[in-house]
Amino acid sequence: MNILIKNATLLSMGDKEEPVENVEVAIEKDKIKYIGEVPEDFYAEKVIDARESLVMPGLIDGHTHIAMSLFRNYADDLPLMEWLKTRIWPLEEKLTAQDVYWGSMLGVAELIRSGVTCFSDMYFFMEETAKAVEEAGIRAVLARGLVGGDNDDGRRFEETRKLYKSWHNGAGGRIKVMVGPHAPYTCSPGYLRKVVELARELNVGIHIHIAESADEVEESLKNYGKSPVRHIYDLGLFDIPTVAAHCVHLSDEDIEILAENKVSVVNNPTSNLKLASGFAPVEKMIKKGINVALGTDGPSSNNNLNMFEEINLAAIINKSVNHDATSIPAITAIKMATVNGAKALGLEKEIASIEVGKKADLIIIDTQKPHFYPRHNIISAVAYSAQASDVKTVIVDGKIVMEDYEIKTIDTERIMFETEKAAKDLMRR
Amino acid sequence: MNILIKNATLLSMGDKEEPVENVEVAIEKDKIKYIGEVPEDFYAEKVIDARESLVMPGLIDGHTHIAMSLFRNYADDLPLMEWLKTRIWPLEEKLTAQDVYWGSMLGVAELIRSGVTCFSDMYFFMEETAKAVEEAGIRAVLARGLVGGDNDDGRRFEETRKLYKSWHNGAGGRIKVMVGPHAPYTCSPGYLRKVVELARELNVGIHIHIAESADEVEESLKNYGKSPVRHIYDLGLFDIPTVAAHCVHLSDEDIEILAENKVSVVNNPTSNLKLASGFAPVEKMIKKGINVALGTDGPSSNNNLNMFEEINLAAIINKSVNHDATSIPAITAIKMATVNGAKALGLEKEIASIEVGKKADLIIIDTQKPHFYPRHNIISAVAYSAQASDVKTVIVDGKIVMEDYEIKTIDTERIMFETEKAAKDLMRR
Repeated sequence: MNILIKNATLLSMGDKEEPVENVEVAIEKDKIKYIGEVPEDFYAEKVIDARESLVMPGLIDGHTHIAMSLFRNYADDLPLMEWLKTRIWPLEEKLTAQDVYWGSMLGVAELIRSGVTCFSDMYFFMEETAKAVEEAGIRAVLARGLVGGDNDDGRRFEETRKLYKSWHNGAGGRIKVMVGPHAPYTCSPGYLRKVVELARELNVGIHIHIAESADEVEESLKNYGKSPVRHIYDLGLFDIPTVAAHCVHLSDEDIEILAENKVSVVNNPTSNLKLASGFAPVEKMIKKGINVALGTDGPSSNNNLNMFEEINLAAIINKSVNHDATSIPAITAIKMATVNGAKALGLEKEIASIEVGKKADLIIIDTQKPHFYPRHNIISAVAYSAQASDVKTVIVDGKIVMEDYEIKTIDTERIMFETEKAAKDLMRR
Repeated sequence: MNILIKNATLLSMGDKEEPVENVEVAIEKDKIKYIGEVPEDFYAEKVIDARESLVMPGLIDGHTHIAMSLFRNYADDLPLMEWLKTRIWPLEEKLTAQDVYWGSMLGVAELIRSGVTCFSDMYFFMEETAKAVEEAGIRAVLARGLVGGDNDDGRRFEETRKLYKSWHNGAGGRIKVMVGPHAPYTCSPGYLRKVVELARELNVGIHIHIAESADEVEESLKNYGKSPVRHIYDLGLFDIPTVAAHCVHLSDEDIEILAENKVSVVNNPTSNLKLASGFAPVEKMIKKGINVALGTDGPSSNNNLNMFEEINLAAIINKSVNHDATSIPAITAIKMATVNGAKALGLEKEIASIEVGKKADLIIIDTQKPHFYPRHNIISAVAYSAQASDVKTVIVDGKIVMEDYEIKTIDTERIMFETEKAAKDLMRR
């Protein structure tokens, strides 16, 4: 469908940093065709009047586990390892494919409502998440979470191959697959070497958790005599393009290794704060040239999928951590949630900025609300004032996924009903 | 008007911590008349069906300067003193009463939309803020900000007396007045002694900023040989019931002085993080028995008036600051934004919990949204998942101020128009 967006204030996140007022954006099929001057003969089947609105690229959630929405508000105010070992892992043992399907549907509904057009997920029963992505019309990079020892039977590797065959470039090209080793403390060295081989075989990137907690670093030093980053580097993992979630506890050497190997880091401020994991050295990493993206982490350690909250947190926390109110200014936090996310996922040529020839993944924010007044600075407004609930319309791959606050592709009411049922059944099992 | 709320899930914040399902709440005039079993002959002019909703006390914003909404997104990513001296104070010099009126109207509109039913404000042209409070139907404690040296002409003291005479117990009892010395670094010792006399004369509490930045503490040590807290204590200020905003940089002795003198502290997490002021020792203060409330600070250092964000921040930041994921659990953060706020303002017998005989200041949150599913724990949901925009209906003093997301008392569209105009005019002056 060809779409013409009129009267927009545009924050393109392209070459030009400043927003531009009173712009037209024309979408032809899945791509941005014109910006600014649209030829009079451009035929639009749909015209959107974006008066008193901001048009900007859809947000990219660089690290999450959306099916964990089933555990939202189930176990809070607990430390990471206790939370995982006593509450989350026992429940995950009981999860069915059907549960993951509904958890994923709830997750994509929430992501779309929050202006996220692309997310990177690591979990299991990933075919179910892929189905949810296909139905909802969102974009995703999916990785089957891998945990195992040296003598692992290779079951999860097979599932990764199957996921790759069924879904890589699937859903009209909206789905990519990555290889997803969970973490250096849940994968043995031998297992991680096989992970590298698998990534080579499939020619895809790696998505992994690294250095999330101080305990993890301590354990790694005890077991391997080196930090998690150094350990993984020595195993050859960084020969593959890697997305490293968290990276909260890093030495200067770790930061250098990440920078030299062009590892992308995904910062998850809410989850890190809530699990008492600590404060990631975001500014230091950016200064060393590391590409730092932004993520929500799973909705059970957050407890929502609200990238506007993460943008705001990234912008404000690092100021106090660094005793410097100029640290991570508004535009940098917005970049983390858009262009940096795309770069981490290898999608920087396709998405995350509104430029001619790129995929039409964009959101329209309704700025006709008290918290957007007066209109001094739209970039500040996005980082410091905006709410996820201000997202009015969402377009992914040139298709309208949400319009006037209503998701068009999936049945939100049914999803809430089914996830409530799935969660209740799960607790009874 | 008598109101009957039916089918509610109730988080009363009274004696019972757990939410109760399927409850009726009856409001007679300005007060809660029945909870649970409402006699059949209770005549309600208005019945609200609160199915799939949460009824809880309205939030209390313990420290703000709402008229500064005019400067929202005007100057960001700057340190506190540079921000004040080069950007905010020069603009404030030019503010008119009319500007403060429209800034206050914008502020109360945003507060109501975010579920705030009472706020404590310090600024100037406070009659204008009082007018906005009266029109909007919200509750407020207002203080004329006082700055001055030993030889001050007493103009601001006169304005405080005038504000007290005109508005203390005004707007149907919804307005109280306090004495508002700005800070120990903007008021001389002699001036602060006179402030104490004025508070005694009017028999009201004091609202002051203390120890917001490390610089302030350093300067106080240099000028007076003691910390701001000790300095103020020695001047006799804490003989008056005092609300101290910020208290970010405190020694153990400071904390003891605040505790012993029953000073209430208002924590402003977003503003402190954004201005790089640092992390207030919230848990330590609470453990020492200090009553810690929560506030947004002004919308120019935040940049919104969203108490749900502050609740979430208070709950998650202190976990990482204290390396303890059990620090400031969800219910504690919610208490900070309700009952602790009321106690700070001396209103604990009237508001902040839904109990028979108390004022009907309550909000109805629409939980029929993806981020509230599944329904594992409503207290966690309020602190970790809820958004300000989930507030559907707001009742203050028994009157419906917002219903189904629409403010009934004031014209939001006109307010946005007038504040935009006021801000533009201000920039041109």
